[in-house]
Amino acid sequence: MTSRDMTTPQSLLFTDAFLSPLVIEEAVARALDEDFGRAGDITSIATIDEDAIARAVMVARQDGVIAGLPLAVAALRRLAPDIAIEAHQRDGAGVTAGTRLLTIIGDARAVLGAERTALNFAGRLSGIATLTASYVRETAGTNLRICCTRKTTPGLRALEKYAVRCGGGFNHRFGLDDAILIKDNHIAVAGGVRAALERARRVAGHLVKIEIEVDTLEQLREVIATGIADAVLLDNMDIETLRKAVHINGGLLKLEASGGVTRDTIAAIAATGVDYASAGALTHSAPNFDVALDIDVG
Amino acid sequence: MTSRDMTTPQSLLFTDAFLSPLVIEEAVARALDEDFGRAGDITSIATIDEDAIARAVMVARQDGVIAGLPLAVAALRRLAPDIAIEAHQRDGAGVTAGTRLLTIIGDARAVLGAERTALNFAGRLSGIATLTASYVRETAGTNLRICCTRKTTPGLRALEKYAVRCGGGFNHRFGLDDAILIKDNHIAVAGGVRAALERARRVAGHLVKIEIEVDTLEQLREVIATGIADAVLLDNMDIETLRKAVHINGGLLKLEASGGVTRDTIAAIAATGVDYASAGALTHSAPNFDVALDIDVG
Amino acid sequence: MTSRDMTTPQSLLFTDAFLSPLVIEEAVARALDEDFGRAGDITSIATIDEDAIARAVMVARQDGVIAGLPLAVAALRRLAPDIAIEAHQRDGAGVTAGTRLLTIIGDARAVLGAERTALNFAGRLSGIATLTASYVRETAGTNLRICCTRKTTPGLRALEKYAVRCGGGFNHRFGLDDAILIKDNHIAVAGGVRAALERARRVAGHLVKIEIEVDTLEQLREVIATGIADAVLLDNMDIETLRKAVHINGGLLKLEASGGVTRDTIAAIAATGVDYASAGALTHSAPNFDVALDIDVG
Amino acid sequence: MTSRDMTTPQSLLFTDAFLSPLVIEEAVARALDEDFGRAGDITSIATIDEDAIARAVMVARQDGVIAGLPLAVAALRRLAPDIAIEAHQRDGAGVTAGTRLLTIIGDARAVLGAERTALNFAGRLSGIATLTASYVRETAGTNLRICCTRKTTPGLRALEKYAVRCGGGFNHRFGLDDAILIKDNHIAVAGGVRAALERARRVAGHLVKIEIEVDTLEQLREVIATGIADAVLLDNMDIETLRKAVHINGGLLKLEASGGVTRDTIAAIAATGVDYASAGALTHSAPNFDVALDIDVG
Amino acid sequence: MTSRDMTTPQSLLFTDAFLSPLVIEEAVARALDEDFGRAGDITSIATIDEDAIARAVMVARQDGVIAGLPLAVAALRRLAPDIAIEAHQRDGAGVTAGTRLLTIIGDARAVLGAERTALNFAGRLSGIATLTASYVRETAGTNLRICCTRKTTPGLRALEKYAVRCGGGFNHRFGLDDAILIKDNHIAVAGGVRAALERARRVAGHLVKIEIEVDTLEQLREVIATGIADAVLLDNMDIETLRKAVHINGGLLKLEASGGVTRDTIAAIAATGVDYASAGALTHSAPNFDVALDIDVG
Amino acid sequence: MTSRDMTTPQSLLFTDAFLSPLVIEEAVARALDEDFGRAGDITSIATIDEDAIARAVMVARQDGVIAGLPLAVAALRRLAPDIAIEAHQRDGAGVTAGTRLLTIIGDARAVLGAERTALNFAGRLSGIATLTASYVRETAGTNLRICCTRKTTPGLRALEKYAVRCGGGFNHRFGLDDAILIKDNHIAVAGGVRAALERARRVAGHLVKIEIEVDTLEQLREVIATGIADAVLLDNMDIETLRKAVHINGGLLKLEASGGVTRDTIAAIAATGVDYASAGALTHSAPNFDVALDIDVG
Repeated sequence: MTSRDMTTPQSLLFTDAFLSPLVIEEAVARALDEDFGRAGDITSIATIDEDAIARAVMVARQDGVIAGLPLAVAALRRLAPDIAIEAHQRDGAGVTAGTRLLTIIGDARAVLGAERTALNFAGRLSGIATLTASYVRETAGTNLRICCTRKTTPGLRALEKYAVRCGGGFNHRFGLDDAILIKDNHIAVAGGVRAALERARRVAGHLVKIEIEVDTLEQLREVIATGIADAVLLDNMDIETLRKAVHINGGLLKLEASGGVTRDTIAAIAATGVDYASAGALTHSAPNFDVALDIDVG
Repeated sequence: MTSRDMTTPQSLLFTDAFLSPLVIEEAVARALDEDFGRAGDITSIATIDEDAIARAVMVARQDGVIAGLPLAVAALRRLAPDIAIEAHQRDGAGVTAGTRLLTIIGDARAVLGAERTALNFAGRLSGIATLTASYVRETAGTNLRICCTRKTTPGLRALEKYAVRCGGGFNHRFGLDDAILIKDNHIAVAGGVRAALERARRVAGHLVKIEIEVDTLEQLREVIATGIADAVLLDNMDIETLRKAVHINGGLLKLEASGGVTRDTIAAIAATGVDYASAGALTHSAPNFDVALDIDVG
Repeated sequence: MTSRDMTTPQSLLFTDAFLSPLVIEEAVARALDEDFGRAGDITSIATIDEDAIARAVMVARQDGVIAGLPLAVAALRRLAPDIAIEAHQRDGAGVTAGTRLLTIIGDARAVLGAERTALNFAGRLSGIATLTASYVRETAGTNLRICCTRKTTPGLRALEKYAVRCGGGFNHRFGLDDAILIKDNHIAVAGGVRAALERARRVAGHLVKIEIEVDTLEQLREVIATGIADAVLLDNMDIETLRKAVHINGGLLKLEASGGVTRDTIAAIAATGVDYASAGALTHSAPNFDVALDIDVG
Repeated sequence: MTSRDMTTPQSLLFTDAFLSPLVIEEAVARALDEDFGRAGDITSIATIDEDAIARAVMVARQDGVIAGLPLAVAALRRLAPDIAIEAHQRDGAGVTAGTRLLTIIGDARAVLGAERTALNFAGRLSGIATLTASYVRETAGTNLRICCTRKTTPGLRALEKYAVRCGGGFNHRFGLDDAILIKDNHIAVAGGVRAALERARRVAGHLVKIEIEVDTLEQLREVIATGIADAVLLDNMDIETLRKAVHINGGLLKLEASGGVTRDTIAAIAATGVDYASAGALTHSAPNFDVALDIDVG
Repeated sequence: MTSRDMTTPQSLLFTDAFLSPLVIEEAVARALDEDFGRAGDITSIATIDEDAIARAVMVARQDGVIAGLPLAVAALRRLAPDIAIEAHQRDGAGVTAGTRLLTIIGDARAVLGAERTALNFAGRLSGIATLTASYVRETAGTNLRICCTRKTTPGLRALEKYAVRCGGGFNHRFGLDDAILIKDNHIAVAGGVRAALERARRVAGHLVKIEIEVDTLEQLREVIATGIADAVLLDNMDIETLRKAVHINGGLLKLEASGGVTRDTIAAIAATGVDYASAGALTHSAPNFDVALDIDVG
Repeated sequence: MTSRDMTTPQSLLFTDAFLSPLVIEEAVARALDEDFGRAGDITSIATIDEDAIARAVMVARQDGVIAGLPLAVAALRRLAPDIAIEAHQRDGAGVTAGTRLLTIIGDARAVLGAERTALNFAGRLSGIATLTASYVRETAGTNLRICCTRKTTPGLRALEKYAVRCGGGFNHRFGLDDAILIKDNHIAVAGGVRAALERARRVAGHLVKIEIEVDTLEQLREVIATGIADAVLLDNMDIETLRKAVHINGGLLKLEASGGVTRDTIAAIAATGVDYASAGALTHSAPNFDVALDIDVG
């Protein structure tokens, strides 16, 4: 086995997902620093000879969708640049319990030292991808797109939004700066829907989309009348109201349902004809995906 | 209302929890940078006058245990150093849905800009504290201590371990470097339990504890016979085996049950008499705690 | 004079400009580190008593539009937190040669040490604002919006785009990640205008705008036919072709003229009816604005 | 084509220029982070297959002197470590419009992603080198050395001073800490030319040069009388006065003309016999050099 | 000579020493930045052709124990990734004056540029290792372990503690966070030995050791009576008192002698039977080890 | 007692010493991070109430010269911004054992947490200042200036050179980039003394001093003949040869004796009439200065 076809972890990235490759390096360095502290992996230093070689297989322990393999690889490479890694899957793949993900051969201290960091990344991101995929499955055959929010783990947003894409979902804003989303407070301060939208149009460049949150169909009509918004966030509306909103909109603006979006409600939401449904739970409450490293040092 | 009695966010920290105060500043800076990007909160810039003042109340939306208030405060302060904040609760407090946590008065753009970062910290850490507390409640009246693992979100370990403490749990290792934990691979490579423990004792200083993982009672007896270990991790043993382990140990070493530790099993585990039970789920699978910021700009 | 009404440099920011306030602190720290090196301002240390007080006035030496005062203030504050600064103008103000911008009273070593950094920021950013304003003036009375590009000084993009706003211009993308701009290479690889746009629509979330570059009116018609793009970049078209493009478009998409946009051509471009004209020169070739610090140490 | 003879970008550096090679890596990392943000080059991700290969040629679009190729190469390498790059020129080379600078073959997404960053570095630094060379040409056959100042773009000083060297100029101080330059304010506070110079001599080590700024010939005579200074900055003196200064100095100290140094005046200044002429415009007002990347993805 | 068997500097690390390999990269980067500043090694740039090759041998100039070779190698590699280095010794080796440590062949500017940084690391760390070894020699045949303290050079603690290990010593705490050490002030505030120990036990996890400082044998008895502490620091006790302490302890707790531990007293201390003796001098007052780089450029 | 007159630690700096104040903040942050790790000062958290107040006095335990008080203050302030500190001495002061340096009143956990960091800085820097002062005393009444080298602790150079100044010494180069120092290897490669000096003059700007190392008086004569160098390093010459060098030089160039400069030889070296004597031992082998913090918590 050689690691030749894996010279950059990026080759394991989900192909259509938006993620700066530069983010990986920084996230992995920070995580390893956090785990190694000042003295490093003192258990392995104490008990493993420095020239020992380990053979390890990363295996899924449950069904789901994988995300985070490039980070696992980057963590191993950072400790042992010459380690040999063969990838059996790549991010975005659907797997079942027992599926082999990576085979690794190299310096035993490095493999054991990177183990937890590699698994923490793969576990968290695959957890998000798997949860997202379960939402997506519920809406198969519809045009609804599941999307995430800014309710992400502080410091990991780009990676978590990447995991949502791996699971078949779509991305909402990556930050406060890449689109305008006018919420109730902004509307109140600006003096109403029209005033807020006009202020936004006055300063925003032509590559900034404008979405506005509405609580009522009346507000939706106001938004449509201005001709300014690109999208509307329908906040906490029940299924019947969503359906009416779709009717009123007549395909003019992108409609996003938000609030109460769960695996149980998503099919009904999709049936209303809204374009997007967003759920913070995809990123802030996804349970960890069970993944392990079976190691053989010899 | 003044912010005088809150000059440092540290005063809101859970009093007995181990956390470097220096960690807070860095985590908050990174999270705000992530959210603000290059252009900042363009929605608020577009729709809110720069001299507008907001009054906001952070409120718990569910029952549970609060953690993360110092980070919420630090995020607000970083954007508006002179903001007035009154704390109604501090980390570690048990709350019910509707409990007011903070009252905030200050620059409206800053409050709206910091809102999501503040809530993301409070939501994640309170989620961990609340889940931990639910485990702790199950073991009331016993001597069992619930503890976390190194299965934490990459980059947030110190904060997540702090949240475990806020919820009444205890901390396992913070990293690979602050104690020796000899696992199956280390034992295999070193040539058995005794050899591994002797290697550890040979190099470890007197302030480094040594724990060793065992899969069988036979191994436990081997460990006890060496007289070297401080603690033993009983890996994936059933209740009956745990009980035997406690008997064999006779109070000599600290015993930690690991594997299969859930809210359902924890009471039975406590009844066996082991000293610690550790669960990765406390940090890697805690659902978000529902907390909100009710804002009034005017 | 007190510095009370200037507790944060943000209060000097151009009110409607998109800029993360967090960017200021980092840019100023880096610039001062660059200038102070290891030994600091050795001339002032050698020749000025440490308790000497300086009174300084920052003055415009030419006509134009000011940008960068918050950075000048932040540089002074970083060296002397208690320095007193009175602002006579704020960013975005039109000034004439001789206009006083800031009055500063404080530690003489700090004032002299921060002088060059403060002036370098104010000189570069005011240069950009002034050049932008000169373009804007040429288009007075039209709907044309002048905008910048990604042709910015490496490391200073957010600040330079802010300066464009101070001068009355608008911002194009802040980076590769906040909108899709499909250029000739992307079209060629994807297999044509329609294929490229469909690929973009397939993966982009609903808050990502899509602009596409066209070289011919035929391509423009293709773009319009797809119904996918939000905006079209008309690349290097002459005035007559621009006019035809506006006619063909019929107000449907945002049209941006690019290439050959100079102060001499901008009025004619505006007359064609395109919505935006972008010029790299605003940021990559703006001459420095002449600004000085008149210092009186005594 | 291989990249073998270019294993480090340093081999493209202008051979005699003072620049820490460590500066390149940091500047390139920062610039790419700025452009890639959180989501990366979303246009290329959306429209280019991940295994597509691009062939690109960097070409000068105007006559001038090249600087910045090592940064362009480093930007490409950071995104695609295995990219093949052949260099046809190196920094400091005089080129004409159409001259090929680099040929690049590699991952298409990486080439397109690094394009703007590479061009921004090459455009800015070549602009400075070209402007500097135009000053140098005016003084051919004289001993005058053109030099830069500390009026540089914040955060890019080392690179801009390197570009001045590529253009045939010389470097003034890199920061406040590597030489003493006593200006009018220092003289005033210290109590005159002699007092200031004596204070400087009292504390400065033997490897720190001392230059002093004078406004009049009288002051120049004072400086000479002290026997302390190494160099004198002749501030804003007309040609006639400069000539007298040279006469008075009699070759004793290095003389630097400053203020009013332009391409129009530089020849006359050289004729006076001063040793150095410094101009902030070299770095703060150099127009961008026109350079492009012709890309063929296939 | 090839550098093949030295692909990572870690292979030169003292095999049993606790040190995160990630610390090396950061320490070397910081040290080189500090030395290169903005303009780099201007002497070598001025006087050495860029394609010159140097052959250099790092040689010990005194007897002692070597530490720091991996840092020397990392410094050379950072400037010239392809440099060939052959290691003749590794950290922890005892050497005599004249012993060759490394042979280096590569880019002459890089070798000269890295020389001082490489020697500063090797000189300081070998100095500590050599001093430690001289203490260790005095206690040969006893069970006493020499250990360091937290009295280390700010910013270099992990490296200095590593050097202590290279010299045959042991490590005390790496920081305030990896063990509890209760000193006189803590005892006073907590209300006595027992109260302090009980507070510690109440909050510390099972992998945190607890040591307590005592001034008298009476306090030692109190500590023993609590059954809580793992180790006792005997502060500034004379030989006779130490001997009594050992007797009282009866092998129950680890005993550490602290205060007055010098090369002259260490043998007598060892004879008392205490387990550890700690000396700040090992790290804060070790004289530099004389090591040189003999360079031949040709 | 208030901390009013100490709003910036800079006011405690030795008044004539070259040190960027920005260096202090970074060095202190790094040192505290190193000591606090992830969990912070767990002993104080466990045993001291969070509202406890400490009163502490920093006291010299030996005679000598103080340096590092601003760093001690900055460490305390970073943990407790509102702490009250009264300074009784400032850097550069000669003290005797028992001299009180600082009185501190504030948060007990912060005082205990910062104690070691504050003392490590003060101990190391005062050690260097004290050693330097002992050299300076030996040369009282002569014109010899004692100076340091680049043989400093990696990462602490600016601070250690500052300490040399506090002790009455002078600074050599701060890095490879602030002056040219041509050594034997450079001479050999360049083809002799004259060739090397001419190469240096050809590229160096007018604010860069040129020093050259010579081994023989013959070489010294060569250097003088070129008329290029500013200073000459006389390498490892005995007293008699130094005297001849002074005679040959006739006051023309600055002469620096290097090699074999110790407290024992320094008076004789001074008597030869050389201008400077440099000793690496000042920074690389200074024993720690004994300083303590007497703390009273209550």
